[in-house]
Amino acid sequence: MSAPFKGIISYPVTPFDKATGRVDLPAVRGLIDRLVERGSHGIAPLGSTGESAYLDDTEWDAVAEASIQQVGKRLPVIVGISDLTTRNAVRKAKFAEAAGADAVMVLPVSYWKLSDDEIFRHYATISQAVGVPIMVYNNPATSGVDMKPELIVRIVKDIENATMVKESSGDIQRMHTLRQLSDGGIPFFNGSNPLALEAFAAGAIGWCTAAPNLIPDWPLALYDTCTAGDLDRARDVFYAQLPILRFILQGGLPTTIKAGLGLRGFEAGVPRAPLLGLGAEGVQTLQALLKAIDARPQPGRN
Amino acid sequence: MSAPFKGIISYPVTPFDKATGRVDLPAVRGLIDRLVERGSHGIAPLGSTGESAYLDDTEWDAVAEASIQQVGKRLPVIVGISDLTTRNAVRKAKFAEAAGADAVMVLPVSYWKLSDDEIFRHYATISQAVGVPIMVYNNPATSGVDMKPELIVRIVKDIENATMVKESSGDIQRMHTLRQLSDGGIPFFNGSNPLALEAFAAGAIGWCTAAPNLIPDWPLALYDTCTAGDLDRARDVFYAQLPILRFILQGGLPTTIKAGLGLRGFEAGVPRAPLLGLGAEGVQTLQALLKAIDARPQPGRN
Amino acid sequence: MSAPFKGIISYPVTPFDKATGRVDLPAVRGLIDRLVERGSHGIAPLGSTGESAYLDDTEWDAVAEASIQQVGKRLPVIVGISDLTTRNAVRKAKFAEAAGADAVMVLPVSYWKLSDDEIFRHYATISQAVGVPIMVYNNPATSGVDMKPELIVRIVKDIENATMVKESSGDIQRMHTLRQLSDGGIPFFNGSNPLALEAFAAGAIGWCTAAPNLIPDWPLALYDTCTAGDLDRARDVFYAQLPILRFILQGGLPTTIKAGLGLRGFEAGVPRAPLLGLGAEGVQTLQALLKAIDARPQPGRN
Amino acid sequence: MSAPFKGIISYPVTPFDKATGRVDLPAVRGLIDRLVERGSHGIAPLGSTGESAYLDDTEWDAVAEASIQQVGKRLPVIVGISDLTTRNAVRKAKFAEAAGADAVMVLPVSYWKLSDDEIFRHYATISQAVGVPIMVYNNPATSGVDMKPELIVRIVKDIENATMVKESSGDIQRMHTLRQLSDGGIPFFNGSNPLALEAFAAGAIGWCTAAPNLIPDWPLALYDTCTAGDLDRARDVFYAQLPILRFILQGGLPTTIKAGLGLRGFEAGVPRAPLLGLGAEGVQTLQALLKAIDARPQPGRN
Repeated sequence: MSAPFKGIISYPVTPFDKATGRVDLPAVRGLIDRLVERGSHGIAPLGSTGESAYLDDTEWDAVAEASIQQVGKRLPVIVGISDLTTRNAVRKAKFAEAAGADAVMVLPVSYWKLSDDEIFRHYATISQAVGVPIMVYNNPATSGVDMKPELIVRIVKDIENATMVKESSGDIQRMHTLRQLSDGGIPFFNGSNPLALEAFAAGAIGWCTAAPNLIPDWPLALYDTCTAGDLDRARDVFYAQLPILRFILQGGLPTTIKAGLGLRGFEAGVPRAPLLGLGAEGVQTLQALLKAIDARPQPGRN
Repeated sequence: MSAPFKGIISYPVTPFDKATGRVDLPAVRGLIDRLVERGSHGIAPLGSTGESAYLDDTEWDAVAEASIQQVGKRLPVIVGISDLTTRNAVRKAKFAEAAGADAVMVLPVSYWKLSDDEIFRHYATISQAVGVPIMVYNNPATSGVDMKPELIVRIVKDIENATMVKESSGDIQRMHTLRQLSDGGIPFFNGSNPLALEAFAAGAIGWCTAAPNLIPDWPLALYDTCTAGDLDRARDVFYAQLPILRFILQGGLPTTIKAGLGLRGFEAGVPRAPLLGLGAEGVQTLQALLKAIDARPQPGRN
Repeated sequence: MSAPFKGIISYPVTPFDKATGRVDLPAVRGLIDRLVERGSHGIAPLGSTGESAYLDDTEWDAVAEASIQQVGKRLPVIVGISDLTTRNAVRKAKFAEAAGADAVMVLPVSYWKLSDDEIFRHYATISQAVGVPIMVYNNPATSGVDMKPELIVRIVKDIENATMVKESSGDIQRMHTLRQLSDGGIPFFNGSNPLALEAFAAGAIGWCTAAPNLIPDWPLALYDTCTAGDLDRARDVFYAQLPILRFILQGGLPTTIKAGLGLRGFEAGVPRAPLLGLGAEGVQTLQALLKAIDARPQPGRN
Repeated sequence: MSAPFKGIISYPVTPFDKATGRVDLPAVRGLIDRLVERGSHGIAPLGSTGESAYLDDTEWDAVAEASIQQVGKRLPVIVGISDLTTRNAVRKAKFAEAAGADAVMVLPVSYWKLSDDEIFRHYATISQAVGVPIMVYNNPATSGVDMKPELIVRIVKDIENATMVKESSGDIQRMHTLRQLSDGGIPFFNGSNPLALEAFAAGAIGWCTAAPNLIPDWPLALYDTCTAGDLDRARDVFYAQLPILRFILQGGLPTTIKAGLGLRGFEAGVPRAPLLGLGAEGVQTLQALLKAIDARPQPGRN
């Protein structure tokens, strides 16, 4: 098994027009440029942060297409696919592939709880429909589906295009078990922001995160220090950004990242109802956190 | 506060054509007739059991319309509304009202966790858009949203059309608290099958359940014995049906009810992928459970 | 299987001398008299409420002996046995039997988690050492041991003196399963105060509670209305006492009951450190709750 | 704040005589020597692994005294204090200090849940009674008490002798919060074996573990590589020992360590009932795990 990319994979939000609430495609493109230029190793549109669950199919297709075009092969693009029905997940995966995606990141979501066999069939059906690599994505807090490492390993071993994993449960023991069950053979990314340091310690090859929207240098510096095996500097770099990582997670990523982009001078609107924008107090806290980290010496990349 | 109906509210499943996977509207109508004729006090299409989360908008509209028409004012119809966006929840609620629904049952669902204010605004926006009563529906296991009694009471007190509650958390203490916080003033239904006896003991005015698809007399008999205050007979009637209530819940309601309807001679197809139909072993168990309860003397209604 | 008693089983607290912190044996005897005279169906000293976990062996023996003597065969006495080692649990059970206990209520407690086999052996060893009936007691919140119904049924079926159960998990489904697994053959008591109504609805033959220390008539009235099968009156009687039942549980039974006894004019001291006595605000709330229930018409027993 | 020691703190088990079940004091001394000679940085008798919860007071005193004497100032000794009553916790702490302990490790345990104020008072009372440093120890899984970082920081800041922390919840975020709340000023040890690598990454100054009873070189090598900041070697060393770390935790430390000591040729008996010794299948698994790690090249210490 190998992954076609590694490092810091950045999630753009999906900007909405403040007046109409519609997807703001020029802003989608602008944000993609911003992320590419500031140094990510990959771009993952339509993830949890991208509010893909709140878009209708027409909107989803438009964002996928615009994002892939705008990256323009400068970096790998991994498109998020999370849909309640296998039918529509397949449709989206095929659309993404046709539009030029380098990989798809598939998150099974549930209304009724899914059995392991149901989840396995979901991945198998998608794999048969496309030719790009699939990142098996576990994120029980948002999706309501919790894939244990044993199931993930079974999926990666038995389903052709499933070649890498993203673990967002926040439980480091899941990563240990993934590694043990596969003798280190399955490449895995971390998707839990406050676990970034320890996930690299445990052997993650990358970190999928929305943080680069606000503080692009810091996740990169953590990756660099960890791959250099420099634990002491990695720890410093991690604790410097941890308050922001926690804040953006606790407040909901679309909510906090959109507010933070506003503070950074990039208008991305507010999340779609029932989600609310970040309240005044939250904005103030976030502003203080950004100011504090900006005041530090640049993390200095290797 | 008062509810415009009480008693046993039956959930139809949404039958799919076995060959095409499309919604089978004639079977939708046939199942409605079956439920009405066998004695429910209300019909609730497009609930969790109705796989509404797995339908696209066109399908959803068609099922809502066909169901309401087919009931034809013989019983109250409560249409389930669960949508990730407030925008589409409003659209569905207005559609249901226009089609003749007597009430809507609104379940907030989440991808990103919702704050109390976000949930409140969701209900308020829907209430402003329609004129029919709203049943505030809590079902954390499927929806990912857990509304505490304090929030539910706030919603019912402050939002005009929100006049009744359905509690499906399965935690009897929630019902106690609802009653205490409102001095018994908020009518509530139970939505947790294995809690049916105790919910009536605690003061529920009704039970929303998919069980009438398979054993219509037994839920009615439980309601009758409980409203008659006859605890000993209620207990017998409850324990007689409990094995089936537990089985249909544990296996997932659409999955088990569709299999059970097949055993009862009514073809409803299988749930939509990624959901799988009930396996052979499960069908055998269900058949044995149905045979056992059919062998009992009719529960005899008051 | 049958139980040698049923109905309302009252837990006395263990009074301590305010000045010295030592067990106050005259107060132990006084409280026993108080409970017997006001109408319980059984007395259970040295339960969770009796702070048995905080007594050294000498104290424990003295309380057991004084309690049994003072009841003086007026009512059945069930002595609580909860000890980390099987060795000392056996010692206590034999002591209680020799002192005249009618039964022992055995709660396995854990530091290291216990396997089912370890729990089974614990009960078997105690059973071999005594000739009195054993009540199998499940209370995961205090003991750290959670015995599933399957294990409880195995214990009752295979261990000679284990003939009845007390379920204090607060999960009504546990009682359903106990009944189903034994075809109703295992008599069970409820030990969760806020579940008292529903436990009787589900078939509990009794309720073990500290509430009679403060409001002796109300638990008895709930038992009477439930055994009479009068659900409507039972519901009224239950909701009248529920605020007190919740208060005493949430604040910790020794803490709140000792404070309440003080308000009732009976000095029982405060719990042993690290437990603190009830704070001033709590005392005020409890006083208001007692005043409110005292203002109601007597529940009137059948 | 500073800690008077750091690194690998080893827990001895408390050996019992196989025939009599009594504490085997010569074996206590033999095991102490074994641990000291093989390279720990400190010895912590009467911890969870030492079954202190299952010893009576006389036994506890004897083990404390023998252990401290046998270490004979070759290494720091930290004596575990976990008692349900503050009174007996104070007695034990004073005994340990008088016997020459360098520090005490205090774990609050609960039958009735403890409030923050009750926990705080417990520590404060012990601190007033002794002059040695107190390690504030959080281990919710065994003790039933979960001290949040906010409370731990309050205890360390306000109580004189409380100068260091041991976190055994297994949740790395607790360590992050401890560090953030104290600006890195509170020294903390890790007590969760499968978290050892990540805890060092997060800044733990030591690891309290029973693993040195069986594989003394490997925990030391992890500490050495982590303090050297060599992440890649640390990761290798960690994954090599992880299967054993998980096995000894899942099976219960006294149970598995005693079985493992037997396999290593040191007779320590079995844990005290209701705990059972490790079953035949478990012994076989453990033997295979030990064989596998013994077959690796020595981890080579810096």
